[in-house]
Amino acid sequence: MKNLKIKLKTKKFCMRAKAASRKLALIDTNTKNKALRGMAAALLENKAVILKANMKDLKSAGSKGMPSAFMDRLTLSGAGIEAMARSLVEIAGMKDPVGELIDTIKRPNGLVIKKVRVPIGSILIIYESRPNVTGDCIGLCLKSGNSVILRGGKEAINSNIAIFDLLSAEAKRRGIPDGALSIVRDTDRSVVDDLLKAAGLIDLVIPRGGESLINEVTEKSRIPVIKHYKGVCHTYVDASADPDMAEKICFNAKVQRPGVCNAMETLLVSEDIAKAFLPRMIERFRASGVEIRGCPRTRRIASRGVVKADERDWYTEYLDMILSVKVVKGVDEAIAHIMKYGSYHSDAIITENKKNALKFLGEVDSACVYVNASTRFTDGGEFGKGAEMGISTDKIHARGPMGLDELTSYKYVVYGNGQVRR
Amino acid sequence: MKNLKIKLKTKKFCMRAKAASRKLALIDTNTKNKALRGMAAALLENKAVILKANMKDLKSAGSKGMPSAFMDRLTLSGAGIEAMARSLVEIAGMKDPVGELIDTIKRPNGLVIKKVRVPIGSILIIYESRPNVTGDCIGLCLKSGNSVILRGGKEAINSNIAIFDLLSAEAKRRGIPDGALSIVRDTDRSVVDDLLKAAGLIDLVIPRGGESLINEVTEKSRIPVIKHYKGVCHTYVDASADPDMAEKICFNAKVQRPGVCNAMETLLVSEDIAKAFLPRMIERFRASGVEIRGCPRTRRIASRGVVKADERDWYTEYLDMILSVKVVKGVDEAIAHIMKYGSYHSDAIITENKKNALKFLGEVDSACVYVNASTRFTDGGEFGKGAEMGISTDKIHARGPMGLDELTSYKYVVYGNGQVRR
Repeated sequence: MKNLKIKLKTKKFCMRAKAASRKLALIDTNTKNKALRGMAAALLENKAVILKANMKDLKSAGSKGMPSAFMDRLTLSGAGIEAMARSLVEIAGMKDPVGELIDTIKRPNGLVIKKVRVPIGSILIIYESRPNVTGDCIGLCLKSGNSVILRGGKEAINSNIAIFDLLSAEAKRRGIPDGALSIVRDTDRSVVDDLLKAAGLIDLVIPRGGESLINEVTEKSRIPVIKHYKGVCHTYVDASADPDMAEKICFNAKVQRPGVCNAMETLLVSEDIAKAFLPRMIERFRASGVEIRGCPRTRRIASRGVVKADERDWYTEYLDMILSVKVVKGVDEAIAHIMKYGSYHSDAIITENKKNALKFLGEVDSACVYVNASTRFTDGGEFGKGAEMGISTDKIHARGPMGLDELTSYKYVVYGNGQVRR
Repeated sequence: MKNLKIKLKTKKFCMRAKAASRKLALIDTNTKNKALRGMAAALLENKAVILKANMKDLKSAGSKGMPSAFMDRLTLSGAGIEAMARSLVEIAGMKDPVGELIDTIKRPNGLVIKKVRVPIGSILIIYESRPNVTGDCIGLCLKSGNSVILRGGKEAINSNIAIFDLLSAEAKRRGIPDGALSIVRDTDRSVVDDLLKAAGLIDLVIPRGGESLINEVTEKSRIPVIKHYKGVCHTYVDASADPDMAEKICFNAKVQRPGVCNAMETLLVSEDIAKAFLPRMIERFRASGVEIRGCPRTRRIASRGVVKADERDWYTEYLDMILSVKVVKGVDEAIAHIMKYGSYHSDAIITENKKNALKFLGEVDSACVYVNASTRFTDGGEFGKGAEMGISTDKIHARGPMGLDELTSYKYVVYGNGQVRR
């Protein structure tokens, strides 16, 4: 390893996490599960401590006039803490990926090669001011045998530290190696700059957030990065779509929970069905308070209440009750639009035409592609994976919902009885 | 995608590769295989052209006084070209990974989620002056549906361009999309700096080479990197080792082909067997021309002919007939030494003690760990994977021998019949 040009204090902090990861990789499943259940109990017993710390963060953010969506994400409730505890218990119940035999290769020379799942090592998670994800990140990393270094949004620092201190103390009591859980207590950005240079001490960085965070991490990191980037998700209603199904799915994809990354941001409609489909669809959206931003043809068809969409709209993840709508010639133009403006997260086609479905599913190069279902299903739980670290929008290592398996690497264990190469 | 601050010419070059990757991802197996076989035939028919270009490179490198190991790697022979052609035919015969169904998840709500293998996209390969790998890189990327951008060592530029032009023309004739194969013809380093900034246009960088190349790429890249770094491989001879087996394996691991990354560079010996094992082992090495650099105890035991090893030796990949030797207390010290000085490539224990074997295999965090076999087996062919891109020393995405599967990502294809999220 080359010399790292980072502050000694940060280097020691990372070395501690890395050393702990070597020990944690060898800890048995039972010890990890007992720790997770103990941590869940500690959360429930200390709700008041966490709520008090959260109140401090809320007051500080409120005095800075942060927007309401931000305040929503920052707020922890008693129910929110219970959900965090339930999630830790759920992770305790999940299969331990460490040591899983992925493949066995028997060679003619008698060598037996076992491909075995192992932890990645030490993982730095950089996330927005959402204290409820702190517990999940700790739980998933612990179960998959990885040391975790948390760096949450600075507005949530008191909440995060309160949760961390509780979970960390309980983990230590239950035999989890010292240093396996860490949190960056200094909210100064220069600490992150140093952490991102700690190649060899940190094995992976997972940034979860918007464009500026992702760009900054990508720009500065000397460590492998798996991005959890925005979701500019599309639904394309094909000429042959069942109009009732299309309406139901589009409405769900936009309205059921607009503030999340798998919600629809752009609706594409085939020109052959636009006149029949769009007026009633737009009416339903408008009745529910969704602002529509349309292309010129959408505006002509709707006749009223559709704002003009500009070029920037097609790139935008609104995370809000806003939808951009475009009439396209057909499946080819829909695919071209998605590939140009999308973020390769989740995109759907609604169609009864098998050929168009296969074309869309094959050519749209997104983590999750759907036929006749809502993009809202892109989620670890909905995919049957249980709790998740987030949704990877990268193609390297992990794509889509990232659960325990995706937090592991593998090694080849080769058993011989004297074999040499000829 | 953010604005890339790179030269327009380079941007266009990358955009062409990226656009081609979208088309190549959809090309059927048969077309790819016919192209690969056609490319093999083109190599055999045009040996003279390649040898002439190689001669030009050899003259130029010779006049610069490059070392003989370098000249060896740069040299192409008729047999070398035949081997490259055979490799392309072998790749044509391998299973196409694209479209492979990795997993099917059926959900209670009726959704069917298929996890399907897809190409990564466009891959930049930066490699040393070894023109014989040019064909393998092209063949493996083509078969796995990825656009490839080649950047070989500048000393091999004429050889690489000759091979590339032949293969590229043949691929085009056989229906492979224009732009799927590219080579950087400009040997200026600033072109690479620009390529490494082309996030969104290049999906993956694979650097193959020594420390300075790897560090430079890691430092500059804004694109995911899978490193093919050096192999400081160890063999640890445990107290309970069968001495004859240990001698045979150690000799093979060092001498059979010392210039490659899976050759042994450091021999660790338990103090309990050192006096019985080391003298005859060292004698055999010395008789074959291996220079021994030993720790103080090794030098005392051998009594003569062992140079003093300094701290730097333990970190060194000699790629030569040189071996460092250290006497250790036992398996724990051996593991600690490997984790401190090694490169996490391939490491072996020779032992008849099952407990020590399991400890070593579990705790040494290298891509390939061996019991009672030579580290020389770390190789795509020897692992039954066929031709390989190289040996990944990273833990993210691919570890150890990297074949066709490791050159792919996956996507989730979700089939519904009107499902919405509740």
